[in-house]
Amino acid sequence: MRKLRYAMVGGGRDAFIGAVHRKAMALDGEMEFVAGALASSAAKAIASGQDLGLASDRNHGTWEALLADELKRPEAERIDFVSVVTPNHMHFPVARAFADAGIHVVCDKPLVHTTEQARELAEVVARTGVVFGVTYNYTGYPMVREAREMVRNGAIGEVRKVIVEYNQGWLATRLEETKQKQADWRTDPARSGIAGAIGDIGSHAENLVATVTGLELESLCADLTTFVAGRRLDDDGNLLLRFTNGARGVLITSQIEVGCENDLRLRVFGSTGTLDWRQEEPNTLLHSPIDGPRRILTRGSAWLGEAARRATRLPTGHPEAFIEAFANVYLGVAAHIRAKSAGTTPLPGEADHPTLADGARGVRFIEKTVESAGSAHKWTRMD
Amino acid sequence: MRKLRYAMVGGGRDAFIGAVHRKAMALDGEMEFVAGALASSAAKAIASGQDLGLASDRNHGTWEALLADELKRPEAERIDFVSVVTPNHMHFPVARAFADAGIHVVCDKPLVHTTEQARELAEVVARTGVVFGVTYNYTGYPMVREAREMVRNGAIGEVRKVIVEYNQGWLATRLEETKQKQADWRTDPARSGIAGAIGDIGSHAENLVATVTGLELESLCADLTTFVAGRRLDDDGNLLLRFTNGARGVLITSQIEVGCENDLRLRVFGSTGTLDWRQEEPNTLLHSPIDGPRRILTRGSAWLGEAARRATRLPTGHPEAFIEAFANVYLGVAAHIRAKSAGTTPLPGEADHPTLADGARGVRFIEKTVESAGSAHKWTRMD
Amino acid sequence: MRKLRYAMVGGGRDAFIGAVHRKAMALDGEMEFVAGALASSAAKAIASGQDLGLASDRNHGTWEALLADELKRPEAERIDFVSVVTPNHMHFPVARAFADAGIHVVCDKPLVHTTEQARELAEVVARTGVVFGVTYNYTGYPMVREAREMVRNGAIGEVRKVIVEYNQGWLATRLEETKQKQADWRTDPARSGIAGAIGDIGSHAENLVATVTGLELESLCADLTTFVAGRRLDDDGNLLLRFTNGARGVLITSQIEVGCENDLRLRVFGSTGTLDWRQEEPNTLLHSPIDGPRRILTRGSAWLGEAARRATRLPTGHPEAFIEAFANVYLGVAAHIRAKSAGTTPLPGEADHPTLADGARGVRFIEKTVESAGSAHKWTRMD
Amino acid sequence: MRKLRYAMVGGGRDAFIGAVHRKAMALDGEMEFVAGALASSAAKAIASGQDLGLASDRNHGTWEALLADELKRPEAERIDFVSVVTPNHMHFPVARAFADAGIHVVCDKPLVHTTEQARELAEVVARTGVVFGVTYNYTGYPMVREAREMVRNGAIGEVRKVIVEYNQGWLATRLEETKQKQADWRTDPARSGIAGAIGDIGSHAENLVATVTGLELESLCADLTTFVAGRRLDDDGNLLLRFTNGARGVLITSQIEVGCENDLRLRVFGSTGTLDWRQEEPNTLLHSPIDGPRRILTRGSAWLGEAARRATRLPTGHPEAFIEAFANVYLGVAAHIRAKSAGTTPLPGEADHPTLADGARGVRFIEKTVESAGSAHKWTRMD
Repeated sequence: MRKLRYAMVGGGRDAFIGAVHRKAMALDGEMEFVAGALASSAAKAIASGQDLGLASDRNHGTWEALLADELKRPEAERIDFVSVVTPNHMHFPVARAFADAGIHVVCDKPLVHTTEQARELAEVVARTGVVFGVTYNYTGYPMVREAREMVRNGAIGEVRKVIVEYNQGWLATRLEETKQKQADWRTDPARSGIAGAIGDIGSHAENLVATVTGLELESLCADLTTFVAGRRLDDDGNLLLRFTNGARGVLITSQIEVGCENDLRLRVFGSTGTLDWRQEEPNTLLHSPIDGPRRILTRGSAWLGEAARRATRLPTGHPEAFIEAFANVYLGVAAHIRAKSAGTTPLPGEADHPTLADGARGVRFIEKTVESAGSAHKWTRMD
Repeated sequence: MRKLRYAMVGGGRDAFIGAVHRKAMALDGEMEFVAGALASSAAKAIASGQDLGLASDRNHGTWEALLADELKRPEAERIDFVSVVTPNHMHFPVARAFADAGIHVVCDKPLVHTTEQARELAEVVARTGVVFGVTYNYTGYPMVREAREMVRNGAIGEVRKVIVEYNQGWLATRLEETKQKQADWRTDPARSGIAGAIGDIGSHAENLVATVTGLELESLCADLTTFVAGRRLDDDGNLLLRFTNGARGVLITSQIEVGCENDLRLRVFGSTGTLDWRQEEPNTLLHSPIDGPRRILTRGSAWLGEAARRATRLPTGHPEAFIEAFANVYLGVAAHIRAKSAGTTPLPGEADHPTLADGARGVRFIEKTVESAGSAHKWTRMD
Repeated sequence: MRKLRYAMVGGGRDAFIGAVHRKAMALDGEMEFVAGALASSAAKAIASGQDLGLASDRNHGTWEALLADELKRPEAERIDFVSVVTPNHMHFPVARAFADAGIHVVCDKPLVHTTEQARELAEVVARTGVVFGVTYNYTGYPMVREAREMVRNGAIGEVRKVIVEYNQGWLATRLEETKQKQADWRTDPARSGIAGAIGDIGSHAENLVATVTGLELESLCADLTTFVAGRRLDDDGNLLLRFTNGARGVLITSQIEVGCENDLRLRVFGSTGTLDWRQEEPNTLLHSPIDGPRRILTRGSAWLGEAARRATRLPTGHPEAFIEAFANVYLGVAAHIRAKSAGTTPLPGEADHPTLADGARGVRFIEKTVESAGSAHKWTRMD
Repeated sequence: MRKLRYAMVGGGRDAFIGAVHRKAMALDGEMEFVAGALASSAAKAIASGQDLGLASDRNHGTWEALLADELKRPEAERIDFVSVVTPNHMHFPVARAFADAGIHVVCDKPLVHTTEQARELAEVVARTGVVFGVTYNYTGYPMVREAREMVRNGAIGEVRKVIVEYNQGWLATRLEETKQKQADWRTDPARSGIAGAIGDIGSHAENLVATVTGLELESLCADLTTFVAGRRLDDDGNLLLRFTNGARGVLITSQIEVGCENDLRLRVFGSTGTLDWRQEEPNTLLHSPIDGPRRILTRGSAWLGEAARRATRLPTGHPEAFIEAFANVYLGVAAHIRAKSAGTTPLPGEADHPTLADGARGVRFIEKTVESAGSAHKWTRMD
């Protein structure tokens, strides 16, 4: 199996998530990092590429130069896809340009700043037919996929209620004043968009609910707050949700909950059972059937379904974690690209990755949340 | 120390909570069960009293007969207080009559059906000067009292956010159809009041927040749902909260979350720390200071405060639980009654029990929640 | 149902466990505390009885006076049983004297100091026919009884291995120097016997294994250590066990494991399943069947067996704990006494309490452990 | 930084651990897989190398061919090290030959079959000066390194007691009959050595204790059992340990504990504190200081030491797991190799990996355990 070649835009020195993307892509030996434009400053971009051993003719100061160069190269050498891991405001121009050039794209979340941009991007992708993946990485966890399969198979009956929480505490003080890079851009509307915590982590929560339950959001009622004085975006958000099937939900997201690290938790309550998953202990999924004791499902067990099995590398008790989940998203995109290149359709379950539609729905969720929080009438319909 | 004599109204055969009250009062040997009117049907009341060994002349068919009989007895024999553990609709007439007669009262929650009734009861109590306790039993847990003391002492800075959940699943099916007694009256508006889950357990959640944080609720936005077809009251409720100090909150309550037993959890997020307590593991309290690792505080430890110490019977690792917490509420009332009888003031921390004011605030919370859930404009002010 | 009258020997001021026994007996309203000789010093005994409201003519300075007085009283007034909660060295003379006088006995553990004493006591009990219970209180937990029933029913196949641990840390420093009462007598061979931690808590571990598994110990290999300088008895012990059915075991006990509170844990590994129970979270029992995921069994659940059901007062999620387990042991003794008094045989499961045989086996376990630890050839047979 | 080139011996089709080694080496982009002899059958070896994209001239049927070929290549192309991941019996010949040829070696555990072999290997390594790493992978976990640093820094005082457990259940039935590859060779004395569970996982337990505490074992007393009929090696072992500083220990290891997955746990009890770490939740380390509540230390926290910091890739709450720990061992070896190549000494903490001495000590531990279990006098000295 040929390794897929990729370029990265963003993810240079001081970045956090770019290195995670690279490790995730390296893990299984299916992808090769060959080119990049790794920072918004050309000098930093070049230096970052040197750190990482990029060949000098594929280590660019700007993403435009990277794109131009790739298009000049013969197909046998050209990148198969680009991974866009910049701050949010650059997702749109970069992803659109590469997609427009016929290069497959993996883009970090939240996808873009506005629904308008999402629509435009969708048009480009539809036209050029490129594969487009969005790194809602938590969907790559095997036990999330098990939960999804269980809900779809009716293991918990009809979904009645969802509680999703994403609790963090790292912004409980005004960290952005220290110029810490992650805090700096995430609290800046120009780069982060109209939302703070809701955009950064609330979007993961929304996606996790949609992925696992398949439910469609009908309306929401949001309360967004900025607790840290001087901060320009929300750092805490709490939402009531209503789904089109009559289910209800609560979505909690915060970056000021002291002591919380990366506490993403999803509970799905059905008419005949309940599922409970926590990202910080990702190898287990709790299942409470209505007619028996709670069961601790563990990754790698013989009694799990096909989707979880596919996403698993190690036996039970040998924990897998964040990077492996990330890698699973990339493996889904890779399978998709390979099938596309071969002119075939991916086998069921093979191209398992969040899509442009997921990304677009996430953008709309952020817009509607901000609208609800700011309006007089708080309950806001999604359409 | 003389044992306090008490009568019970309600709590006969098939009742659940009456027996818990009696065990709680028996535990420490400070109270003596001497009289009762234990059921709404006279025959069942008498039979229940016989089961429990009540003397026949103090085993009554109606609470009115009980009250009349007690008032005829000499003081040295008369009950010190009455414990009212009937279904909700009887709290008001019974509690008012005994208070009016100058007999101290302990009443279960929710206190009464309406704010109007709560006001009338408050007038009677103010006039006669009786001690009035409300069995918000969860406030009796030592680690809840530790949390309260920590918040008041500034251990977590200014409170910014509260998440309180009360997750149950026992009404996920239409249990009331089977005539199971607990389900039957709790889902009947005539006996339970205008609210289902919100009244039954949401009121505990409200009280826990108020007790631990001391914050005043400014407004709320509620979404109440009845998931089980044919049920006449809500079985699920989710609320956004705003407090007068600017803090925000989420209150989740449900009786249809399959697999959840009695999962009451309170998280309080302050500017410099977080507290996390779960009723199902009541002997521990998690404390996350902003400048160090999470600490597992355990009941009985040398480093806890005075209020927790007072409420503790056993050394660390020898778990205490539900009944002991209940007993602590009664011990607080008893200390109050003893001081009153002696014409003294209870020492600080001695008469530690929820009061009529707590009960009245709880009734208002239920009314406003139902108002919010039913209104067009969902955010509803408490005043 | 008439309340059983009891006297207590030991358990006065500063004692810890006596108060627990009294609360346990008070809890369910089936027993009445009417007489006592509560301390080894007459003055302290009398003062302690006054604290607790004993009538002055039944509040004695010595246990001999108590016994003599009871024997003079008419049967309708006389105690039904005595509860012996003194330091260990007094168990034998007191229990023997009351049993010899035909009064039922409940005695704390370890039963006596020597197998010789245990035999003598057994002869007395056999002769007079009194009911004799030993307060191995941990066997009163509903989930321990569930485990016992599951093992007996074959739910985990043939037992292959047992790991039992009793981890404490309260004697990690030389607490006895401070004259803290609990530390003082437990580290004194004259009062505690030939063993320290092994006698105090190792005996509970032994009993828990025997109760749950029904296995017979064939031989053991012990390593006992005194870590705290100047201490006269072991404060740490680790044992390898062999059972007559070929099963193997490990028994760990310590009072110097800093930070451990009362961490008694039992794991039983069978050929088709495993059980895991921890005293500090007593309301749950983990069951791992060989062909499915781990199940969290919780007290009060509909799918538990009869023995657990009998021992349960509250619904699931409303935790019960240490005192309730203790009370269950007493309820078993009480049922036994009532049946005996009525000349009947207790119904199966009704008189569920540890017996003299359990106590005697525990004494032998301590002796053999000390023998093994001190011998050149460490593996020591039980017979 | 140039990528180190490596060859692998073993780890072909159906192998489990070889793929883990490759993923671990791929993760951080510092190593490159260039050659191999991946199975004991030449045909399977070649096919496995083709699966993994090895160049055909570096994809060998035997390890001898691989070695001969590498020695012919120019240094700029030759492998920097070999990773030996065969069944145990091949470790010795392969590792010796490569070390003898001056090629750095990483070898899986247990190192070799006998102390004699370990000595011979040590002589070769001393003579040629190659870097030799042993993949006791659990020592690569950041929180294990934190524990090691805390013990060394005196954070828990003098170590008094150690409990180490390695609980597995996958061999509770006679899995080897199905020819499952992992079970097949591990239960075959010819390939696995004189020990079963004790060799396979007990050796990890021994190493973890030695690594974290630095204590030297003085003697041990072992009970080894084969529970599954027909099996030729032990599948369960329980040991008492004595250390030269007077500390005591218990080592438990099993592969027949149903429901246990890969439950490696280490508890270290010191005079002023306790540490508790579990492999299945590797991102946390519990620390109980004698004078305060238990603290939950989490990977990535600001208050951890240098060794944990070095071994960490992701922020707190973004879990790392098994592969990352494995990768940390390889990174330590790589740093060692780079320093050696540069003629320098690795910086303190940089070449953090288990060494040949660890491996040799582990072999001796296995020998002495088997000796103790088989002898009449069970306590066996290490020297």
